[in-house]
Amino acid sequence: MNEKYMTIALEMAKIGYKKGEVPIGAVVVKDGQVLSAEHNRTEELSDPTAHAEVLAIKKAAEKLGDFRLNGAQLYVTLEPCPMCAGAAMNARIEEIIFGAFDPFKGALGSVTNIYTFNFPNKPQIYSGVKEKECITLLKDFFKEKRK
Amino acid sequence: MNEKYMTIALEMAKIGYKKGEVPIGAVVVKDGQVLSAEHNRTEELSDPTAHAEVLAIKKAAEKLGDFRLNGAQLYVTLEPCPMCAGAAMNARIEEIIFGAFDPFKGALGSVTNIYTFNFPNKPQIYSGVKEKECITLLKDFFKEKRK
Repeated sequence: MNEKYMTIALEMAKIGYKKGEVPIGAVVVKDGQVLSAEHNRTEELSDPTAHAEVLAIKKAAEKLGDFRLNGAQLYVTLEPCPMCAGAAMNARIEEIIFGAFDPFKGALGSVTNIYTFNFPNKPQIYSGVKEKECITLLKDFFKEKRK
Repeated sequence: MNEKYMTIALEMAKIGYKKGEVPIGAVVVKDGQVLSAEHNRTEELSDPTAHAEVLAIKKAAEKLGDFRLNGAQLYVTLEPCPMCAGAAMNARIEEIIFGAFDPFKGALGSVTNIYTFNFPNKPQIYSGVKEKECITLLKDFFKEKRK
């Protein structure tokens, strides 16, 4: 785990923020190389699956020409929802490092932890990395939106 | 619920079978109109997120120009994995109708039922529709693959 990749995920989240997307960023790293860096694009693409994690996983797999990302890490600013936590298993991600917890949709400890069940290919989880920066960005976004 | 849409999902699964993909098909229907019909394409696209359900949800949302598919049904030949069960919530799918149960990755009753937890926008579930046809197709595929 290396905090510098969370900094990149945060930079991606900020780019999303400026475009009016919920500011969440994700980065896929393998062997110290950044394979992909994405932000949430559900509004831009009218795509309910276009979360930062899914987009980063897709792009990383495309780059490697293999849908199996064994040995890769997924850095993401917010605790993944069930879709993204599931996508990480399907992609054989080895470690997920997330920033803030999501009490509404978090599937790796908040609403439940789906990795406590007997699914195959479950990544290791690390949480709370740059948590304050990750959550502040989201709070600012929703505060501004409510105005 | 109308079995004719499961027949379309099965036809899609058979098209996938011929291409060497795990034969799973999915259809999104709204107001009696088929918005999308897809099969699993993980091999073809080198994309771990290219399950039939995710592809069908993406295409349906693209067609409507809205990532919210309120009032839509998702027909799928196999019980969704966590990623796909999660994508259906994110897309506000109203009902999921699936054929066969998946003891390995099924997230709507087999390994666990993630809709028993307090996530928002959970679809209603109907299972066992054309179950025998759905499971036979998968069994035949894996039997042939092992040869």
